[in-house]
Amino acid sequence: MGPGPSDVHPRVLRAMATPLVGYLDPSFVEIMTDVQELLRYVFRTDNEYTLAVSGTGSAAMEAAFANLVEPGETVLVPSNGYFGGRMGEMAARVGGEVVTADAPWGEPLDPATIEAAFDEHQPTVVGVVHGETSTGVRQPEIDEIARIVHEYDAYLVVDTVASLGGVEFRTDEWGADLVYSGSQKCLSAPPGASPLTLSDRAMEKVRNRETQPRSWYLDLEGLWTYWGDDPQYHHTGMTSTVYALREALRLVAEEGIQARWERHRRLAGALKAGVEAMGLELLPADEHWLPSLNAVRIPAAADGDALTSRLLEDDGIEIAAGLGDLAGEVVRVGCMGHSARPANVLPTVGALGRALDAQGVDVDVGAGVAATNRELGE
Amino acid sequence: MGPGPSDVHPRVLRAMATPLVGYLDPSFVEIMTDVQELLRYVFRTDNEYTLAVSGTGSAAMEAAFANLVEPGETVLVPSNGYFGGRMGEMAARVGGEVVTADAPWGEPLDPATIEAAFDEHQPTVVGVVHGETSTGVRQPEIDEIARIVHEYDAYLVVDTVASLGGVEFRTDEWGADLVYSGSQKCLSAPPGASPLTLSDRAMEKVRNRETQPRSWYLDLEGLWTYWGDDPQYHHTGMTSTVYALREALRLVAEEGIQARWERHRRLAGALKAGVEAMGLELLPADEHWLPSLNAVRIPAAADGDALTSRLLEDDGIEIAAGLGDLAGEVVRVGCMGHSARPANVLPTVGALGRALDAQGVDVDVGAGVAATNRELGE
Repeated sequence: MGPGPSDVHPRVLRAMATPLVGYLDPSFVEIMTDVQELLRYVFRTDNEYTLAVSGTGSAAMEAAFANLVEPGETVLVPSNGYFGGRMGEMAARVGGEVVTADAPWGEPLDPATIEAAFDEHQPTVVGVVHGETSTGVRQPEIDEIARIVHEYDAYLVVDTVASLGGVEFRTDEWGADLVYSGSQKCLSAPPGASPLTLSDRAMEKVRNRETQPRSWYLDLEGLWTYWGDDPQYHHTGMTSTVYALREALRLVAEEGIQARWERHRRLAGALKAGVEAMGLELLPADEHWLPSLNAVRIPAAADGDALTSRLLEDDGIEIAAGLGDLAGEVVRVGCMGHSARPANVLPTVGALGRALDAQGVDVDVGAGVAATNRELGE
Repeated sequence: MGPGPSDVHPRVLRAMATPLVGYLDPSFVEIMTDVQELLRYVFRTDNEYTLAVSGTGSAAMEAAFANLVEPGETVLVPSNGYFGGRMGEMAARVGGEVVTADAPWGEPLDPATIEAAFDEHQPTVVGVVHGETSTGVRQPEIDEIARIVHEYDAYLVVDTVASLGGVEFRTDEWGADLVYSGSQKCLSAPPGASPLTLSDRAMEKVRNRETQPRSWYLDLEGLWTYWGDDPQYHHTGMTSTVYALREALRLVAEEGIQARWERHRRLAGALKAGVEAMGLELLPADEHWLPSLNAVRIPAAADGDALTSRLLEDDGIEIAAGLGDLAGEVVRVGCMGHSARPANVLPTVGALGRALDAQGVDVDVGAGVAATNRELGE
């Protein structure tokens, strides 16, 4: 119940143990094609350029900025969370001029802030984080942000590492130009093959670069020689991890993407009801709540690191301490993919309550577990 | 029996199916420490800075050049194979001025060529490939090359993707400054966690850079915040792949590294004897033979792509066609890690012979399998 890796379904673990074939073996190329088709379903996109990057979500993030940004271009990134900051670090490494769209940690970006940043800085690439793992904030109005970005003929990159497959996201309908994710959160596959999709228009920008991307490993034109029709060697494919990603995506398709979004809302809703009934509150306002990652404010008297250690040691439950600006202020409880089950949610609420109580924090543990249990029954 | 992924031992496949824990879970940190200790054994090094990069061998190659090379520095890379060329591409992407140490495909570099290149170009970083997957050439005299490189106060990077754990390599004794590998060749783990080690002196160069590395994902100082003492979050660790790498490295340690080198020589030696007895020859001279990758010259009458397809379809055996300059001129037969077994070698020789015979090439298949079988019995 941490911020990922989430629990992996036994069918996916079994796929990981499948004997390996060559990365250009016809049977493996079929699996890659399956993965692409299933990723289009999960991303809600018809983008041809849809693939899995051979690395974690941060590799997919780097692929986004290393390819879309040329040295000297202005890149607008958000200030309201740890991973927005990481976007800025990466954009700077690849030669971008980084400016920030300001919002406090715990709040989403206001599209008006983006509009104002265009007036002032004329960015060519804008990054936003749909589900911010550090704050548990869900960024609304991606469609409105995309509209503004396109009005200025710029490109919108969206990070869905903590949300894809668990929280409603619609690449094409909302107009995102490049979207990436990780495999080990709401998709519940092991880390190592990270979904990425980009529009024809975004790929056109990549193809028309004046300079080569600064990364060879993450060069999207190179990656497409392998993931496109008539696959050629670029780098060795992530055989086992791609097997596992396919199986995890099949589980998403079997459940249905909308049913899966709904399950995350329901299970995380029960968790939220429990911690609130206990007397705690979540960092973001209700309308920006990210079901997959629940940032629970802890009272000043509580010790976040001791809480996470106790839950791990006494209850075998992983949750995470606060990150960046929120260190010591929140604990982060994931509710992702195969982990989002009643048998996980209720014990987590109970264990968190008991651990806070043991630290002398005034919480009504009984009311918390009762509220969670009630919600789970509905 | 291709150039990798090689067959993965059932114990390693089972490790892949282990349920996941958090990438900072104390039990996972213990596994990372095991991996580092076992990698030091396999690399024959006492280097503190020893870790697994979260990507394939090409990611480890990029980590080497992205960190050791600053924009404007001169980098010397070899011209005698596909992966030496890739070193050059990567060094150029990160801002290096690339010059080549010339040798034909199929031959190793002569240390005198390196010495001459220092006179002419004064490189600060020199890359060489210990086992060139495209040519099957083993680069000898790494120790002599290191001596020259150090005489000029430069740094030697060695690619052991196709050799580590299968062919003798001694990081410390030979004086290599940074060595990397892949997991899916002689180590027989799935791709995705790529071994890398560097000396204190090389890490000092990385720490004293005037500019940040152009890759955030592969920044060695960042990676060391995760792999060093008191691990902190950098990016999500490759949980399952690291489980598998540990198990694969344990198998190496149980066999003993010298016994493993010897097994590769013996099994690949039987393969080599078979193809030679059949009337074919290997591309490199005997003294530069790379047991883990056997580049077999095919007569002009043969069709390499059809050969590899037939072996895969009719015999379920993967071998690979020629790459780069050698397309159409060789087929490449791996003999790596868990694949290097009598039960694989003899059928491969037989199937290759039958497939050539079916293409009308004059080969003595009977003499080939007899020679392999005889060598396997010794």
